[in-house]
Amino acid sequence: MTMLSRQDHEADWLKSKLELYRQLTLDELIKRVPRHFPNDTLRELILDYPTRGGKGFRPSLCMSTCEAFGGRRSDALNSAVAIELFHNAFLVHDDIEDGSHLRRGLPTLHIRYGIPLAINAGDAMNVLTLRVLLDNFGILGAEKTQRIFEEIDWMVLQSVEGQAIELGWVDRGTWSLQYRDYFRMCLKKTGWYTCITPCRIGAIVGGACIRDVNLFNSFGYHLGLAFQIQDDILNLNGDVQLYGKEAAGDLWEGKRTLMLLHVIHHMTDEERVHIMSILDTPRDDKQEDDIVWILSRMDDLGSIEFAKDVAWRFANHASFILENRLTNIAESEARHFLRHIVDYMVNRQL
Amino acid sequence: MTMLSRQDHEADWLKSKLELYRQLTLDELIKRVPRHFPNDTLRELILDYPTRGGKGFRPSLCMSTCEAFGGRRSDALNSAVAIELFHNAFLVHDDIEDGSHLRRGLPTLHIRYGIPLAINAGDAMNVLTLRVLLDNFGILGAEKTQRIFEEIDWMVLQSVEGQAIELGWVDRGTWSLQYRDYFRMCLKKTGWYTCITPCRIGAIVGGACIRDVNLFNSFGYHLGLAFQIQDDILNLNGDVQLYGKEAAGDLWEGKRTLMLLHVIHHMTDEERVHIMSILDTPRDDKQEDDIVWILSRMDDLGSIEFAKDVAWRFANHASFILENRLTNIAESEARHFLRHIVDYMVNRQL
Repeated sequence: MTMLSRQDHEADWLKSKLELYRQLTLDELIKRVPRHFPNDTLRELILDYPTRGGKGFRPSLCMSTCEAFGGRRSDALNSAVAIELFHNAFLVHDDIEDGSHLRRGLPTLHIRYGIPLAINAGDAMNVLTLRVLLDNFGILGAEKTQRIFEEIDWMVLQSVEGQAIELGWVDRGTWSLQYRDYFRMCLKKTGWYTCITPCRIGAIVGGACIRDVNLFNSFGYHLGLAFQIQDDILNLNGDVQLYGKEAAGDLWEGKRTLMLLHVIHHMTDEERVHIMSILDTPRDDKQEDDIVWILSRMDDLGSIEFAKDVAWRFANHASFILENRLTNIAESEARHFLRHIVDYMVNRQL
Repeated sequence: MTMLSRQDHEADWLKSKLELYRQLTLDELIKRVPRHFPNDTLRELILDYPTRGGKGFRPSLCMSTCEAFGGRRSDALNSAVAIELFHNAFLVHDDIEDGSHLRRGLPTLHIRYGIPLAINAGDAMNVLTLRVLLDNFGILGAEKTQRIFEEIDWMVLQSVEGQAIELGWVDRGTWSLQYRDYFRMCLKKTGWYTCITPCRIGAIVGGACIRDVNLFNSFGYHLGLAFQIQDDILNLNGDVQLYGKEAAGDLWEGKRTLMLLHVIHHMTDEERVHIMSILDTPRDDKQEDDIVWILSRMDDLGSIEFAKDVAWRFANHASFILENRLTNIAESEARHFLRHIVDYMVNRQL
C-alpha cells in the first residue's frame, strides 16, 4: 500500500464516519419536528436546510468525543440534534442578515419563502432545541441535563455576540481591524458552537473529568478557527456546483475575512481607499469587475496562501492538544476519528 | 363614596399594582443583560423595547397567581423576567415580519437599526431567557425548574405555530376564515404566552395542585382572547400619541382581526371583492382613502360593537372560572388583583 493510497483510505473512512453520525442525527432531528403543526409549511421550512446535506461536523464531534470517554453514542444524540437544530436556525437568520442568495447550492430560505416566514422558521427551530434538551432529563438525569443546558446557554450567547460584532463592523463600516479581532469574532460566532461546545458536551455525557472537559476549549478553539478560515478560503475559490454558495459571496457581502484583512494590510494607501469604497458599496450596486480586481490583488499579495498557512497552524495546535494534553483518552476508533477530523478540517474541498 | 368613584379607586389601585410588578420585573431584566457585551449596541438594542414602557400584564399575572397560592413573589420573578424577555423578543421579530413602523410610539427596532441587527437582537433576548430559567435550579430545585421549562417550551412552540398560521394567511391571501379560525390563531399566537403560561407557572411556583394549574388553561384562554380583541380594537381607534402604533396599522398590514372578518362576512359580494383587493395590496401601495372606506363600512355594519361584545363575553367567562372553579384560592390581595385585571383587560384604553 503506497502512502497516497493509505491517505485516501483514511479520508474515505473519515467521510463514511462523518456520514454515519450525520445521518443518525438527521433521522432523529426529522422525528423531532412535530407532524401536528398547524400547516405543512412550517414543517417544510424547518426541514429545508437540515435535509440539504451538510457535513455533520458538529454532531460527529459531539458523539465521537462522548465515545472517546467510553460513553454511549446514543446518550449524546439529543445534544447533537439540539446543536444541529441550533446551527440550522442560525444559518437561516444569518442568511437574512447577510443578504445571502445561496445555501448549499439552492436559494436561501428567505429567498424561497420571504423574510417573514424565514425568521419565524428560525425561531421555531430554536424552540425545538429546547424540547430535545429537556428530554435529556429522562436519559441522563437532572445533573448532567442541567450541565448541558449551561453549555448550550453559553454557546448560544457567544454566537449572538459574535454575530453582533460582525454585523456591527458592516453596519459602521469598520475596517481598522487586526487579525486578532477576526480570530475573536470567529471564536464567538462559530468557534463555540461548531467545535468547543459539541466536544465539551460529548465529554460531559461520556463522563470526563472537569480538566479534560476544559481541555476542549483549546482543542476546539484551534480546530474552529482552522475550520472557519478554510470555509472562508473555499468561499473565495469554490464554484457554485461544488460548494453551494455564490463564488466569492463573502466579498459581495463585504464580510471581514483573514484574506481580506491581509490584502488590506499589504496594499498601497491609494489601493486601500479604493478597496474600502468597493466593499462598503451595497451588495446589489457592486460591480463584478471590482470583485475580480480584489481577487487578483489577493493573488498577487499572497493573501490566500497566508490564510492557508494560518489555518494549518491552528489545526496543528489542535492536534498538539489532542496528542499531548488529552492523554486520558485511551486509543480507540473515536480517538482516531478526532485525530483525523483535524486534518480533514483544512484539507476538505467543500 | 359613589359607585363611580369606587370604580375609579379600584382602577387606580390596579394600575399601581401593575406598575409595581412591571417595575420589579424590568429592574431584574436590566440586571440580566450582560455588561460585558462585545459592543454597546447589543445591550442597547436588547433593552430598547423593554424600557419603552408597556403594561406588565404577563409578569403581573405570573407573580400574582404565585401569591394567590401562598407563594413568594420573588420565587416567580425569574419566570416573569423570562416571559417578559420572550415577549419582547417576539415583538422585535413580529415587527419585522409584519413590516410595522411604530411600537409604543417610537420607530420599531428594525426601522431604527436595520433588519440584520434587529433579528440578532431578538435572538439574543431569547438566549437570555434560557440563562434566567436556569437560575431557577438554585431557587426552586430541579423538579419545579424542569416543570417550568416544560411550560416555557410549550408556550414558545404555540407562539411560533400561531405566527406561522397568521403569516401563512397573509402569504397565501387566505380570507375564507371563520371566527373560530381567528380564535385558534389568537390562542396560539398570544393566548398562551400572554395569559395561560404566566398563570400556570405562577401556580406551579406557588404550589398549586395539578387541577388548579389546569384551570388556568380556561381562565387564560378567555382572558387572552379578551385581551387580543381589545388590542385589535384599540389598534383601529387608537391614535399614535396614546397607543403608540399607527392608527389602523393592522388594516395597512392586512392582518386578520375579528372586526375585519365581521365586516367581510356582512358585506355585499361586490364589496367583498373590493375589500380583498385592497387588503392584499402591499402595504406601501395601499391608499389612505381605501383604509378610511373599510373603517366606515365597519362602523356601518357594527363590526367594532360586535368585537367589543365578544371581548366582554370572553372576559365574563374568565371571571366565571375564577369565581366558580378556582375556589381553592383563598381571598387575598392577589386574588383581588386577578379579579380586577379581567375587567381592566376590556376597559383599558391603551
